[in-house]
Amino acid sequence: MFSPAPLESLTAFCIGHAHDAQAGTGCTVVVAPEGAACGVDVRGGGPATRETDLLRPENMIEAVHAVVLSGGSAFGLEASCGVMDALAERGIGFSLGDACVPIVVGACLFDLLVGAPAHPDKAMGRLAAENALAARAGGGTGAPLAQGNVGAGCGATVGKLGAPERAMKSGFGWACLRAGDVVAAALVAVNALGCVRDGDGTWVAGVRDGAGKVMDPLAALAASPLAAAAAGAGDVANAAAGAAGPCENTTIGVVLTNAQLTKAQATKVSSTVHDAYARAIKPVHTQNDGDTVFTFASGDAPAATDVVAMLATEAMQQAIVSGVRHAEAAFGLPAARDVA
Amino acid sequence: MFSPAPLESLTAFCIGHAHDAQAGTGCTVVVAPEGAACGVDVRGGGPATRETDLLRPENMIEAVHAVVLSGGSAFGLEASCGVMDALAERGIGFSLGDACVPIVVGACLFDLLVGAPAHPDKAMGRLAAENALAARAGGGTGAPLAQGNVGAGCGATVGKLGAPERAMKSGFGWACLRAGDVVAAALVAVNALGCVRDGDGTWVAGVRDGAGKVMDPLAALAASPLAAAAAGAGDVANAAAGAAGPCENTTIGVVLTNAQLTKAQATKVSSTVHDAYARAIKPVHTQNDGDTVFTFASGDAPAATDVVAMLATEAMQQAIVSGVRHAEAAFGLPAARDVA
Repeated sequence: MFSPAPLESLTAFCIGHAHDAQAGTGCTVVVAPEGAACGVDVRGGGPATRETDLLRPENMIEAVHAVVLSGGSAFGLEASCGVMDALAERGIGFSLGDACVPIVVGACLFDLLVGAPAHPDKAMGRLAAENALAARAGGGTGAPLAQGNVGAGCGATVGKLGAPERAMKSGFGWACLRAGDVVAAALVAVNALGCVRDGDGTWVAGVRDGAGKVMDPLAALAASPLAAAAAGAGDVANAAAGAAGPCENTTIGVVLTNAQLTKAQATKVSSTVHDAYARAIKPVHTQNDGDTVFTFASGDAPAATDVVAMLATEAMQQAIVSGVRHAEAAFGLPAARDVA
Repeated sequence: MFSPAPLESLTAFCIGHAHDAQAGTGCTVVVAPEGAACGVDVRGGGPATRETDLLRPENMIEAVHAVVLSGGSAFGLEASCGVMDALAERGIGFSLGDACVPIVVGACLFDLLVGAPAHPDKAMGRLAAENALAARAGGGTGAPLAQGNVGAGCGATVGKLGAPERAMKSGFGWACLRAGDVVAAALVAVNALGCVRDGDGTWVAGVRDGAGKVMDPLAALAASPLAAAAAGAGDVANAAAGAAGPCENTTIGVVLTNAQLTKAQATKVSSTVHDAYARAIKPVHTQNDGDTVFTFASGDAPAATDVVAMLATEAMQQAIVSGVRHAEAAFGLPAARDVA
């Protein structure tokens, strides 16, 4: 029922990356020049987001112009300011008399402890937006959207339950599926406390054991400071807070679809798509993960919300695995391709 | 790190079932005679709940006296009224001068299309509460808490993506795990649109194929009215709404723990435990599922929220599979044990 589809079939959206590979941070921007309905569900305990209040179904804004996924923790929110400038210059935004206010929502992940202490700034956000618009101007005839150590996934890592040096490099991934006329793509930067498994249940990236193999996360947990804390050795709350190595993580993703969804329906789809996080990442949605999913819907194809949710959930599960499989070793950490 | 623990080690709680096996409905009541912190996360699209507003962290009530899981769709909310009466007679409740108001929260599942058209009423709720208190009076020396076609799981079924006659009987299950001094049990009535798989990924109950074997849910979906809708044949929204056979489903569960959690932390744990639903049930959290998780915490053991969440999520995943494995054929539907 679900078959692969080209990302370019979602003609209402364009996507651009920008990053600093040495600093280990970057951002990925999805632009909807004509605006699109958007919803969000934030389920991690430590999020960094902007403009999510206007996404609440009861609030006024019905069309969003860009979704920004960014590294740099809360500092990375700056990238969205550059995206706003780039869009406003082109007249893309919410018109209020002579003013044009682009509606730019976003979420950030924590990558401050890899590479150099840098974060996506206004210039980087602008560049990613311009890359997105240039890809659209090219009519989708360029190379497929890059995956791995790119964009918001540039500094992404996974498997931080144990010692930081036993984590692995992760990255940015995407997948695009079709069910009849309905197309849904998932884009994600995978930066989790937990471990990642493929659709068959095989752990492909996460905490490495002494032999360098990816551990089952429950085994990794048993060897972590959290286990000592749970056993009553020491201050539980402090040990747990310290156990995550990098103290924040966060997997951030966006679903793009041609489906006709209201804001409320896009919110519901975002909520259901977190099931893909649960299936592909373990543990996930902890207090150390700011896990967030946006859904961006252009409204071209009539569709049942549940069909879109199932399609998008499947795409997101594939995108997470794809992001991990496309990652390359960096910052002293191996990637999935190195430990297979 | 996580090891099995007896349910009786959670001494702050007592649990009772009541049901009508012929009518195919029932309820399960957890009583905390001294009150316990409680949180909830409702993630399905079609819930039936009561008193969930007072569980919001900003609201006043800090101690809840009972959680009621019930069949009967929204009619089953009546069972909680009988629980209130039984508790108030015993002075269990929130004292306001001479008044005693038991704080009873609850959620219902849809089982109206199996057995007879009946629902848990005040008498059944009272009976379940009295069974719970009697179990406590017995000092936990009785038989272990029953699983399968009992309590809220009496009329539960799974695998309703396809034709109603290809669904399977499900039931009530529980599992209890320990990590150091922290104990978390999960109790659940599994009544899903989707299919259920065990920890190894094997589908154990759901939609049956022509040979009577449990299908992968994506294959089941491809053969369902939703697929025709997605392919553009007919009115998508109406087809999707009608595709679920029984038009509502809902998996309802409660985590019981001795951990010290605030209402806000219990809310967060409830949210994370939905990851167990995602891992064990597919699809889940659809518009046809009112999926709900309560967390009921007695406050005896200091614990990091994430440890409790991981422990409870693991217990819930086991409880879901246990509920399905303990189910027995009824109402013309086979159970997991019949198709192995």
